Amino acid sequence: MRNFTEQSITEAALERFGTDCDPRLREVMTSFIRHLHDFVRETRITPDEWLKGIQFLTECGEFCDDKRQEFILLSDTLGVSMLVDAIENPGGPGITESTVLGPFFRENPPIVANGGDLAPGIAGKRVDIDCRVSSEDGAPIAGAQIDCWQSSPDGFYDSQMGDGEAHNLRGRLKSEKDGRFWFNTTLPASYPIPDDGPVGNLMRAMGRHCMRPGHLHFWVQAPGHRQVITPLFVRGDKYLESDVVFGVKDTLIVDFGTQQGPRQRVRYDFRLKKAA
Amino acid sequence: MRNFTEQSITEAALERFGTDCDPRLREVMTSFIRHLHDFVRETRITPDEWLKGIQFLTECGEFCDDKRQEFILLSDTLGVSMLVDAIENPGGPGITESTVLGPFFRENPPIVANGGDLAPGIAGKRVDIDCRVSSEDGAPIAGAQIDCWQSSPDGFYDSQMGDGEAHNLRGRLKSEKDGRFWFNTTLPASYPIPDDGPVGNLMRAMGRHCMRPGHLHFWVQAPGHRQVITPLFVRGDKYLESDVVFGVKDTLIVDFGTQQGPRQRVRYDFRLKKAA
Repeated sequence: MRNFTEQSITEAALERFGTDCDPRLREVMTSFIRHLHDFVRETRITPDEWLKGIQFLTECGEFCDDKRQEFILLSDTLGVSMLVDAIENPGGPGITESTVLGPFFRENPPIVANGGDLAPGIAGKRVDIDCRVSSEDGAPIAGAQIDCWQSSPDGFYDSQMGDGEAHNLRGRLKSEKDGRFWFNTTLPASYPIPDDGPVGNLMRAMGRHCMRPGHLHFWVQAPGHRQVITPLFVRGDKYLESDVVFGVKDTLIVDFGTQQGPRQRVRYDFRLKKAA
Repeated sequence: MRNFTEQSITEAALERFGTDCDPRLREVMTSFIRHLHDFVRETRITPDEWLKGIQFLTECGEFCDDKRQEFILLSDTLGVSMLVDAIENPGGPGITESTVLGPFFRENPPIVANGGDLAPGIAGKRVDIDCRVSSEDGAPIAGAQIDCWQSSPDGFYDSQMGDGEAHNLRGRLKSEKDGRFWFNTTLPASYPIPDDGPVGNLMRAMGRHCMRPGHLHFWVQAPGHRQVITPLFVRGDKYLESDVVFGVKDTLIVDFGTQQGPRQRVRYDFRLKKAA
């Protein structure tokens, strides 16, 4: 087929799959091509606008390195990452809700004993985190592995400080026999996602801010259970309603106290679904 | 709004535009976000698949430099570039049809006098190109600027030869008083788009080839007229029906002769629409 029109080119593109194409790839690409063409037809994209789109993607690529992932930021800020998470983790009554991993998780964090300090040497209001891991039936889970990471009181993760090599404000813990794990740390602050690249420019052009409300990340893994990746958010943070990556859920907002108030003990029970 | 579900997150994302957002950007991004979310919901993209998509885009970015544009290749091979062109250039009775610029156009090509050689020092079957530029009413256009560029008989553009700096197989001509321009060159060969990157991998995974039928590019510009960017395709080429970038139109297929046959004179009239 040739002499494609604005209408017929979509079917022409879909006719090109070979018989040896993996069925799932075919399904995904078919839907992708249809939606991409529909988008272009609906909006009557001009060649200049199309070129701007190409340049935007190219610039996103230029900003990517081993510490920065601009395409994930793009996905996060357009609500796609949370949508993918919602499909994967529909949750269920009593199960701790999940949200996205985010760009600041790092492999091989420091091991932190229960009662230890997640933020050694970091000045700022201190909070005591006191949590419990249990199964959906309420039974405590011993020996669960918990990775925690967070921003400083100034709104920076360790990878954004100095040369970005030192680990701080993060650690790996294990739950005790009663399912408890606990540590001391600083109050996490709200902060902007890295906004000096094309995604930051897009947010500003859309009239949006780039802020996330203060939160403390948790990744809880236990044998025989589905993992939970989720943060706890600081109640009262001014960005809870407009988190740039759409990560906030009511059940994940907890009382961390305030910068001025008394030292706070933060309690939370993580409930994990049994693996199928 | 928070506690987004798989369904409600799309409207939540669309509610975030600021009042100072440019109306056209708002229109384009609204459609883009809707289609992107619909695509993810329809196909039930898993986190692993989503990560593969992020990695694919990142790899496309890594392949881009001043001589390679992997995102344009992606757009070309999914039919998007030709769709944008079809919207911009609906054509009309008697007007020369357009197709995409492609990645091999270069600024400041050599000036070639009428009767000159577009492919000096390039061995291979020779053809004489003899064309005419006229307005939609048939009046010849003198002084039109015509850029021409093409692949070698081996299927390579100059930018893919040696260090890629030398210009060859391309040139800029001017039409004479009767609208004619003419030159001598080699028979252009079919060739693969650059296929050693993620787009080539995607094509192979989809069971598609990466070939374009042999063609000679023209970019015709004349005062008071809409420009025409279009190639002429070699009649009989085995890839006419399956051009990887969907660029072939029947009116653009002409007789270049064959590798074995007698030397051929290629005639074509470019008809330009008057500018509005």
